[in-house]
Amino acid sequence: MSEPRYKWIGTRPIRPDGFDKVTGRASFGADLSLPGMLYGKVLRSPHAHARIRSIDVEPALATPGVKAVVTAADLPDLASEAVRGAETQTDFQDLSRNVLARDKVLYHGHAVAAVAATSRTIAERALQAIRVDYEVLPAVLDLDAALADDAPILHEDLRTKGVEGADQPTNLAARIEIGRGDVEKGFAEADVVVEREFTTRMVHQGYIEPHAVVAQSGEDGHSVVWCCTQGPFVVRAYCARILGLDPSQIRVIPSEIGGGFGGKGTIYQEPLAILLSRRTGRPVKMVMTREEVFRATGPTSGTRIRVKVGATAKGKLTAAAATAIYEAGAFKGSPILPGSMTMFAPYVLEHVRIEGFDVVLNKPKVAAYRAPGSAMAAFAAESALDELAIRLGMDPIDFRLANAAREGTEAPYGPRFGRIGFVETLEAAKRHPHYTAALGPDQGRGIACGFWFNVGLQSSAAVNLNEDGTAVVVSGCPDLSGTRITLAMMAAEELGIPIERVRAVVADTETIGYNDLSAGSRVTFATGMAVVEAARDVVRQLSARAAAIWEVDPQEVRWEEGRALPPEGAAGKPEPLGIAELARRAAQTGGPIVGQASLAARGAGPGFATHICDVSVDRETGRVSIERYTAFQDVGRAIHPGYVEGQIQGGVAQGIGWALGEEYLWNSSGAMENPGFLDYRMPVASDLPMIDAQLIEVPNPTHPYGVRGVGETPNVPPLAAVANAVHAATGRRFTDLPLSPPRVLEALDSEE
Amino acid sequence: MSEPRYKWIGTRPIRPDGFDKVTGRASFGADLSLPGMLYGKVLRSPHAHARIRSIDVEPALATPGVKAVVTAADLPDLASEAVRGAETQTDFQDLSRNVLARDKVLYHGHAVAAVAATSRTIAERALQAIRVDYEVLPAVLDLDAALADDAPILHEDLRTKGVEGADQPTNLAARIEIGRGDVEKGFAEADVVVEREFTTRMVHQGYIEPHAVVAQSGEDGHSVVWCCTQGPFVVRAYCARILGLDPSQIRVIPSEIGGGFGGKGTIYQEPLAILLSRRTGRPVKMVMTREEVFRATGPTSGTRIRVKVGATAKGKLTAAAATAIYEAGAFKGSPILPGSMTMFAPYVLEHVRIEGFDVVLNKPKVAAYRAPGSAMAAFAAESALDELAIRLGMDPIDFRLANAAREGTEAPYGPRFGRIGFVETLEAAKRHPHYTAALGPDQGRGIACGFWFNVGLQSSAAVNLNEDGTAVVVSGCPDLSGTRITLAMMAAEELGIPIERVRAVVADTETIGYNDLSAGSRVTFATGMAVVEAARDVVRQLSARAAAIWEVDPQEVRWEEGRALPPEGAAGKPEPLGIAELARRAAQTGGPIVGQASLAARGAGPGFATHICDVSVDRETGRVSIERYTAFQDVGRAIHPGYVEGQIQGGVAQGIGWALGEEYLWNSSGAMENPGFLDYRMPVASDLPMIDAQLIEVPNPTHPYGVRGVGETPNVPPLAAVANAVHAATGRRFTDLPLSPPRVLEALDSEE
Repeated sequence: MSEPRYKWIGTRPIRPDGFDKVTGRASFGADLSLPGMLYGKVLRSPHAHARIRSIDVEPALATPGVKAVVTAADLPDLASEAVRGAETQTDFQDLSRNVLARDKVLYHGHAVAAVAATSRTIAERALQAIRVDYEVLPAVLDLDAALADDAPILHEDLRTKGVEGADQPTNLAARIEIGRGDVEKGFAEADVVVEREFTTRMVHQGYIEPHAVVAQSGEDGHSVVWCCTQGPFVVRAYCARILGLDPSQIRVIPSEIGGGFGGKGTIYQEPLAILLSRRTGRPVKMVMTREEVFRATGPTSGTRIRVKVGATAKGKLTAAAATAIYEAGAFKGSPILPGSMTMFAPYVLEHVRIEGFDVVLNKPKVAAYRAPGSAMAAFAAESALDELAIRLGMDPIDFRLANAAREGTEAPYGPRFGRIGFVETLEAAKRHPHYTAALGPDQGRGIACGFWFNVGLQSSAAVNLNEDGTAVVVSGCPDLSGTRITLAMMAAEELGIPIERVRAVVADTETIGYNDLSAGSRVTFATGMAVVEAARDVVRQLSARAAAIWEVDPQEVRWEEGRALPPEGAAGKPEPLGIAELARRAAQTGGPIVGQASLAARGAGPGFATHICDVSVDRETGRVSIERYTAFQDVGRAIHPGYVEGQIQGGVAQGIGWALGEEYLWNSSGAMENPGFLDYRMPVASDLPMIDAQLIEVPNPTHPYGVRGVGETPNVPPLAAVANAVHAATGRRFTDLPLSPPRVLEALDSEE
Repeated sequence: MSEPRYKWIGTRPIRPDGFDKVTGRASFGADLSLPGMLYGKVLRSPHAHARIRSIDVEPALATPGVKAVVTAADLPDLASEAVRGAETQTDFQDLSRNVLARDKVLYHGHAVAAVAATSRTIAERALQAIRVDYEVLPAVLDLDAALADDAPILHEDLRTKGVEGADQPTNLAARIEIGRGDVEKGFAEADVVVEREFTTRMVHQGYIEPHAVVAQSGEDGHSVVWCCTQGPFVVRAYCARILGLDPSQIRVIPSEIGGGFGGKGTIYQEPLAILLSRRTGRPVKMVMTREEVFRATGPTSGTRIRVKVGATAKGKLTAAAATAIYEAGAFKGSPILPGSMTMFAPYVLEHVRIEGFDVVLNKPKVAAYRAPGSAMAAFAAESALDELAIRLGMDPIDFRLANAAREGTEAPYGPRFGRIGFVETLEAAKRHPHYTAALGPDQGRGIACGFWFNVGLQSSAAVNLNEDGTAVVVSGCPDLSGTRITLAMMAAEELGIPIERVRAVVADTETIGYNDLSAGSRVTFATGMAVVEAARDVVRQLSARAAAIWEVDPQEVRWEEGRALPPEGAAGKPEPLGIAELARRAAQTGGPIVGQASLAARGAGPGFATHICDVSVDRETGRVSIERYTAFQDVGRAIHPGYVEGQIQGGVAQGIGWALGEEYLWNSSGAMENPGFLDYRMPVASDLPMIDAQLIEVPNPTHPYGVRGVGETPNVPPLAAVANAVHAATGRRFTDLPLSPPRVLEALDSEE
């Protein structure tokens, strides 16, 4: 079968929204101001764990300029329940209590009350006037302490899910198990077995834009909410639940978004802004400081993962087992499930077993972070496999190729893979010049692989044809990564018109059908499918209009390069009718032309990647420098290669930060000690080389253009790739991230 | 055929947008402010007619705080052309030159230049610094002067349209002719003939909200325009043409609108705001003063109409003829065509002929005003018919009944009427107690009838089902008259759910398919049809989802009261599935449910009305007071009777203002002398009795609920109804509006 020829798919047009972003003109969450607007601020707990005896808001309310103060008493007291949310189980009791603490505060920074005042300064001053009487409780700050027999209990009503007969209060929220076969049998067949324990720390998504919201409530009880979010429909649904409203009473308008990476798929201040606006009858703006973002919005879990892998002398994996414990933060719900499911997903394994634990402790509740749970799992698995390959004396790529999942392989979590491109990424890595380039002294090269499911979920899109034949692509998924231009390109391809004649916009929750989060690497895949369907709907209508004009059977009209072509031998030999002409005549031929599609997308093609990382290690300072990095990823088909590369580069950069510098540092009372970008060490441009993104295109057969999600997979391999490279450079196997200079230095010193 | 039973159609739910409107919270055109926003102001001509020798903007540009100054030189110099606009022929050369004068100013107040500055005050000061060198020309201020042989010519290139061989420059822009038969023959058959000339003056639509716009242009050349308008898509199209842009480069977001009445269906400042924003890179707000609204936005034509009507002694109309001359203002395009078409439309006439003239003169260019052209035509026709009935000694209603158009009657302008309710309005008027109520001294009763076509045109709508089973109705027609709640009611009826569970919103030009103006009494009719289609699309999808769950044929599923009912004898006897349950399960059954419809609506049912007016005339002061007013109108079917009554009351109030007090007063140099609501006498609540709106429901067979347009017809009869009542009270036939106290007094004095 020959490759399809495309006009726009695979090209690199400039995204129109880029101009406003680079010149600082784009409107982000905090950029809206309304007449009469109040400023909201949140009072946060100074304790990691305490009972709230009482809250006296009267002194704050008496402060001139203060218009309202709210506490958990102003929210419905929701019963615990697990309702299927957009991506994960959402317990609205937990969500409500994370939005405003009720009875207890569970982490340092936990929201306790919110104030709306005529200025930011007055609001901040009023916070200090709120008197909270706390009974301070012992804080649970690490997994051992959380799981100890005499551990202080965060939630008296929490029982372990997934364990028979667990009826005692506990901090262990869930136990899960993934796998098949008989791992003991598998390990017995192994010639070499590696077993090790790996740990990672809480890290933050580190989006540049803090959470920001403006809410305006009308006299009819209807509220309009502007905010930066990955999911306006999720904000609507969650706020409605927390506030006891109908979703139809809330309209969410998404602003531009300065990064989300999973962390902007839930709510924090949004219901408070609505509540304060309903109370005061005025618009209320709430913008977090960076410190608030760190202290009170979702990082991802710190983890402890024990891995055991075995292989024959010839390099065939015989078994893999793991025990993974993930920090959930103050409320249940770490990404232990996807972490466990993805851990060994790239490999053919007859015997595999992963036991996972979700543990609550007195830290902020975690949120999704790019391929949730998977990077830490891959850090453990790919480090262990690296060691196994070394012990076997095998090239690490050859070792993986010998065990690589292919079409038809049964994934550890159940289903068989369809057409996937994992082997292609390994083969591309092996033949790439990077893999055999010479290394200098104190340098090392590591490789690691990664997997992410990618998801489909629900999307709606419309394609509105303008009267001049230009088109507007309307979707409801905030643009995190260039998805507007990408969706426009698919529509341009279908319509056969120049990309400059297609504009893509993100609508709000009242002007487009339901859309799930911009998350799970799903927008170009699932919303793209909806756009393609909607554009084909437009083409069908245009062809029908042309057929009516020519008085021929619509089935006989062909659409090509933006024109309807008459059937051979049509009466009067009519000329082709272009889209602009058909649009101009729409009023006479039946009215406006609008294509629409809504779907629950299935068949998101899994994404696999192989990364090569070169590091140098400064033996004086312990500093690890990334010298070269090449990421090979099966992207299905890259609609806009530039933004696919950008996704891969961004994911790798985040993974490198996680590997080398990022971590929440806690003091003994459970306060984060580094809640700012000076002390929380994210990599900046000067810390990194150019990340070389190599796009491997193994089209996903379920998408009309072969798209697979690409946004999350790149964040999976870097932790292990860096650690494996540092091992190659130093001979030391690092099992505890980050590989920050003091830690590396200590290890090197202990070696000598 | 029994009457259909409805749950919501015909009820009076509260409109949700009403709360914000009565509390002052709703956002109108001037209510948006953006960071860094500039203020734009327009320099206007101090002459009614002058050549512009030169414009020196440098001193204005040098004013601190002034960021840009534009003149016609900054706009493309468009060639004259007539392109089919949304409702009428739009000549974009004229439109451009009305937006900014080029070469000549043509009326006092004509825009000459626009300034953007950091404050309103600076902008106003900068206007004074612009030096315009005018060569003042003689002004043409009335129809006689305009049509005189030696008249000063406004447009050197204007030739009379509709006249063979007219090749001389002229102020007569067009001659039209409507009619059939042989009027001379008809008049020869008449026993009584009445011939009279009637005049009316320019009056303004008098919307409370002045024109207001904020434009923000991005780095990519794309502009967002917020404004109060009857047609965001028309603003987009017109601005694009005037500025030489593609429509897709402009997004128009309609604000709430404080009245339009036809006058907000075109553009004035909007392209200037876009241009100034493109120049400065900052948002630009422009808000007219009331004086600017009067001086430079569309009033409707002053007119002179000579009418001749004849009837047999038995009261059968034998012929009707008229010569109508309408002021177009500075650019061609008075409503002479619809005025002529509607003049005798309520009557059966074998012989009818109307000759119409469109005349330019040095006054502001007219714009559409509620049933454009028709009220003045009806003033002339219905006054003459009143006189004819009196001369025949017939009851005026009986006389009209004897000649009334019915289903199948050929309208004077061509087509045959379908099912219409004119006779029903006459009969209802005749049997209403008002018609026979006793009158006091110096009181009189008049009746008059009126007709308006009503239009269909293009509409798009979507019905988005939320995940809780509530629905959003999305349309693109600004809500002038309660159309949001009306559209929501139709959707609630189709879906079978409570009206509280349906929310209707007006989307912008990028999030809904094309929509023509909110005008021509078309929204409830045409957009309503689209909403009904879209809601039925939702019901079809819901039924299909239920069928899939039940594993039955979708054709066998019935939808009733918001629930899908399984077919008799379905396996397992399933329970009905409600909309909320089906919405909740949408993700699992195929994705979001969105209904969509776009159409070019045909078959707008014509609207007829009969009005009864009682006046008393104060013989001391000449003041005419409206004592009682009852309007009978065929409304097809009233979806929300409260808002239909409101439309009728509003239209009558405007007609009464036109009849009794409103007029543009000019000084000798062509400046309007009364450009404010103190001196321009619109009726206020205390000037009027409660207008009794009697809804006659003769369903329009082409609309699923029988809707006819209702907004314009009520403005047609009042001029004549009032004048006929004053005749009854005084015995004087007034042929020149308004019947202001001095004029009435003068007539009464001359009588005595």
